[in-house]
Amino acid sequence: MKSKELEQYLHLNIPLTVAMGVKVLRADIDHVTLAAPLAPNINHRESVFGGSASALATLAAWSLVSIRLEAEGAARKIVIQRGELDYDKPIVDNFEAICSLENGDKWRRFVKILHRKNIARISLTSRLLCNGELVGRFQGNFVALEPV
Amino acid sequence: MKSKELEQYLHLNIPLTVAMGVKVLRADIDHVTLAAPLAPNINHRESVFGGSASALATLAAWSLVSIRLEAEGAARKIVIQRGELDYDKPIVDNFEAICSLENGDKWRRFVKILHRKNIARISLTSRLLCNGELVGRFQGNFVALEPV
Repeated sequence: MKSKELEQYLHLNIPLTVAMGVKVLRADIDHVTLAAPLAPNINHRESVFGGSASALATLAAWSLVSIRLEAEGAARKIVIQRGELDYDKPIVDNFEAICSLENGDKWRRFVKILHRKNIARISLTSRLLCNGELVGRFQGNFVALEPV
Repeated sequence: MKSKELEQYLHLNIPLTVAMGVKVLRADIDHVTLAAPLAPNINHRESVFGGSASALATLAAWSLVSIRLEAEGAARKIVIQRGELDYDKPIVDNFEAICSLENGDKWRRFVKILHRKNIARISLTSRLLCNGELVGRFQGNFVALEPV
């Protein structure tokens, strides 16, 4: 799945991503970068609404698990079980959520358990950036279920 | 601030709440209930997008802190520092986020510190319900800053 395909998928299936103006800047098996403009995500303080920040961070992590499983021919239903977000700084401009997966061992364990038990859990982190600065840190626990 | 006033405030200041179709069902100093329909918040699995669930839960807790401080004549800028959400079950219909504050001691400590130090932190929980069933549990840490 390429960036444009992921963007179309998100816009078609999750209407809130259209309202948020979500763009996919990069989407491959190691790395997903999503971007959103300030305007539709603004809050009463002229910074990004916490719900928008949480949504973009969640989407980046969910997208990476989905893309990577699909690339391995093991597309699954991916569900979030738990999400935690530290809001380190106000987000005062357009912002990005970046999720990358560098720990190959973690991924291999996840896929091995998935093939053996048909269900497996993985924890991923996303970083929120604004003008190149780290403004938030997300951790999400996802579970992969039946094939799609 | 009454339900209708809070709803107008959210819609005017946080445009994503319009896209999400957020309604305020109840808003007083002890309790806030927000509701949102499934359709604009749906995901690729015909259930509520995790980002929407997180956003509604965050808003309920933020609203309760804001309303209560305002009612005490101490309106402040309220910022979220950390949010955690356990997604217990898929949300397959219209849903609600409920935040209530029954622990008077916790609130009194928060207000006391706020008046003394001009900054104070409070942790609140919101419950997500769908057709009367508990489907998610949110905890948010908020900080009250300068007067508004």
